[in-house]
Amino acid sequence: MNDHADATAERAPVPAAALDAIKQALGSKGWTDDPDIMAPYLMDMRELFPGRAALLARPAGTDEVAALVAICAEHGVAIVPQGGNTGLVGAGVPHAHGGEILVNMGRMNKVRAIDPLNDTITVDAGCVLADIQEAAADADRLFPLSLGAEGSCQIGGNLSTNAGGTGVLHYGNARALVLGLEVVLPDGRLWDGLRGLRKDNTGYDLKQLFIGAEGTLGIITGAVLRLFPKPRRIETALAAIPDPAASIELLARLRAALGDQVTAIELMPRIGFDMALRNVPGTVDPLRGRHDWYVLLEVSATQEGAALRDGLEAVLATALEDGLVEDAVIAETGAQRDQIWFMREAIPLSQKAEGGSIKHDISVPVSRVADFIAEADAACIAAMPGVRPVGFGHVGDGNMHYNLTEPEGADTEAFMAEWERMNRVVHAIVERMGGSISAEHGIGQLKRGELRRYRSKTELSLMHTLKSALDPQGIMNPGKVL
Amino acid sequence: MNDHADATAERAPVPAAALDAIKQALGSKGWTDDPDIMAPYLMDMRELFPGRAALLARPAGTDEVAALVAICAEHGVAIVPQGGNTGLVGAGVPHAHGGEILVNMGRMNKVRAIDPLNDTITVDAGCVLADIQEAAADADRLFPLSLGAEGSCQIGGNLSTNAGGTGVLHYGNARALVLGLEVVLPDGRLWDGLRGLRKDNTGYDLKQLFIGAEGTLGIITGAVLRLFPKPRRIETALAAIPDPAASIELLARLRAALGDQVTAIELMPRIGFDMALRNVPGTVDPLRGRHDWYVLLEVSATQEGAALRDGLEAVLATALEDGLVEDAVIAETGAQRDQIWFMREAIPLSQKAEGGSIKHDISVPVSRVADFIAEADAACIAAMPGVRPVGFGHVGDGNMHYNLTEPEGADTEAFMAEWERMNRVVHAIVERMGGSISAEHGIGQLKRGELRRYRSKTELSLMHTLKSALDPQGIMNPGKVL
Repeated sequence: MNDHADATAERAPVPAAALDAIKQALGSKGWTDDPDIMAPYLMDMRELFPGRAALLARPAGTDEVAALVAICAEHGVAIVPQGGNTGLVGAGVPHAHGGEILVNMGRMNKVRAIDPLNDTITVDAGCVLADIQEAAADADRLFPLSLGAEGSCQIGGNLSTNAGGTGVLHYGNARALVLGLEVVLPDGRLWDGLRGLRKDNTGYDLKQLFIGAEGTLGIITGAVLRLFPKPRRIETALAAIPDPAASIELLARLRAALGDQVTAIELMPRIGFDMALRNVPGTVDPLRGRHDWYVLLEVSATQEGAALRDGLEAVLATALEDGLVEDAVIAETGAQRDQIWFMREAIPLSQKAEGGSIKHDISVPVSRVADFIAEADAACIAAMPGVRPVGFGHVGDGNMHYNLTEPEGADTEAFMAEWERMNRVVHAIVERMGGSISAEHGIGQLKRGELRRYRSKTELSLMHTLKSALDPQGIMNPGKVL
Repeated sequence: MNDHADATAERAPVPAAALDAIKQALGSKGWTDDPDIMAPYLMDMRELFPGRAALLARPAGTDEVAALVAICAEHGVAIVPQGGNTGLVGAGVPHAHGGEILVNMGRMNKVRAIDPLNDTITVDAGCVLADIQEAAADADRLFPLSLGAEGSCQIGGNLSTNAGGTGVLHYGNARALVLGLEVVLPDGRLWDGLRGLRKDNTGYDLKQLFIGAEGTLGIITGAVLRLFPKPRRIETALAAIPDPAASIELLARLRAALGDQVTAIELMPRIGFDMALRNVPGTVDPLRGRHDWYVLLEVSATQEGAALRDGLEAVLATALEDGLVEDAVIAETGAQRDQIWFMREAIPLSQKAEGGSIKHDISVPVSRVADFIAEADAACIAAMPGVRPVGFGHVGDGNMHYNLTEPEGADTEAFMAEWERMNRVVHAIVERMGGSISAEHGIGQLKRGELRRYRSKTELSLMHTLKSALDPQGIMNPGKVL
């Protein structure tokens, strides 16, 4: 499943002189080599990449990060930056050889400043996402990045992976939410790019390099983030639709009517509902009858008044007349809203109870989503009779979590051994449609081989050029991404 | 005023073998060395940087651009990419030494594809911005990039300069509108990154390198751009306000009430109104009485109905009660709307009639705009008694066009000779407030010295690292930006 045997299987142990210097620089609270304390930091969330490290460093501030990296640069020691360790591709955990320093950013967890008139918040990289959301809300603002791990993931990790989530349709990916960055470079120099400006065309936009680089070009230590007006009305609907194509047409109609007030659209298949209802306590089917497909629709407005709900109802009414929608419900209470969202969130949770799942995090142009699902379902079932495709997710971004659950009664281990073969089937269709084999989860260790397979020589060579230019020693998170 | 004597004053002539190979590759329609035809392409719009070139190349397609660049790379010949030649900092014109090939992209002017369900349009780099706006409108979509030169500027130039304009408040800069790029690299290789995806985390986001690089890292030949729902209602108001701080408070209230439906806010001083009314035929003061400051407000919605106008009126009514607004008018007709916008556009047009102007294109955090204007006005008048500061512009982006018009009756030449001294006064305040000395116009030739003065050693060294890594021969638009 992973493909990092090349440069990453072995590395010389970290020299004692480097370890001593790091311990000195960080002080006794800033490091540990106690195996029990280190254990949870060494394993990724999906438990695919157990690692080891010479030391777990926990710097308390930007200057300590800079000192640590300077020592590592001097001794040629590899560094693995880590946020909340909620990543799904093994980017934030060390390799198994143990010759790396793991740098967890969790002690740098302060909101440095908030400027409501500039609609910005300045934060340490180790701030937990939910804490930033809360600080924004306290200032009557919205920080719109929202994803399942928000209670423990850290903003430095969100930015290093250009996190997506459910707010992308209106607010964009994490990259779109950044105005400024503070970064410790691979040679220990500090780049202070903490500007809170909406327009700045003074040379190359350096912050873009580090966003989405998964810690391979430097360590993000701070950021200036954009805030938005807080929505005062949110309307959430669940609609049953005949097929995935209907979700795209419905999205186009909704956007024509309500514009950027359309803040979420999530596509779900009946098989996902069935799995959720079967396996996840507390799930309730919000609609009567069985339907092949569902969409969760959410629209938001800062403005009070009935216009938003009227607009949503009008689009749904016309869609019902046209056969684009078979049935629909708009949440009347917060509890109903939660129930609809819980069905969406229960789908990935429910799959484990059904056996193994081979997972894909793909995107295609929004106009191709229906074609993708049709072709991928047919190809996967042809390649493995009885396999159960469960394609669901952020259809408004063209991003589907296309998971293949094992055939009923299958041997899970034998099924999971087919991971690469089924990747080939799915990713070949993605490639043909001009899509992406990692829409929001990144590359890390898990998809390095896939990146090499599906990106052009020119593209890969440009990435290597950047890596060599910024990190000539190759000490920043080696064996990740490239 | 300019500061490019270093590497750019001289260069060996372009070898005959290179010229012959280029002529061969482009065919007779693809080049000229006729001085009369070349003349308008050799001078920038502000007429600050007269240049010369060995040849004007006008490639008809991406393959021709790649062939041309490969020949130049082989012979070490410098290349100057040029769009509509509407830039304000001399980035798109050749140096005076004549040892460069000027590559105008105007023949590559096709809309390649439009995908309304994906909300994307794929274009050649030489497409005129207004043509893209029109193609989007024909598909019932909005391409929101909008600026004064839209009738002749080309999208390749807009992307290479990360253009701003009047739509940034809601839609962002040009960078935010790009999903994919096609670029010819400095060695002649083609990078095809023309993906139309809203989520794609497969390694480094290479397109970010070329956006805003002013043609110094490669030539953009095509792009996939984002489209948006077309607004069906637009409300435009002009409000008289006591001071600049009122515009920021008004913006905060408007955004709290109407969210991202607030699409423009432009601040204007009375002196700008006076100059416009005095010098630009057709200008009419939309309000009775004299007021010190004005804001143009625009809100837009896709949704029909009165909610938008009601919301705007409610905010203005409360602001009037609170003394935040002294008087206001909401346009009742398209003609009234045009009249309000014309006052805004007339301000820069009117300045020429008042004598010389020393210009600044600065940004600060939005919360600091009022402080900036107060401090800069005081400092400039102290430094040059009688000078007339005219600060106006995109206050919602923190971006002011802060122009200093000569004292009444001054000697224009002597006044203009003070350009650098007055830059120092203004830019020192910008620097202290964490602002930018080029918010939307870029660096080009005009601001290379300012970039070196106001960006840190680390930042400049990172920019040079990128330039050397991607263009080791230094042939892509040398002597611009860095």
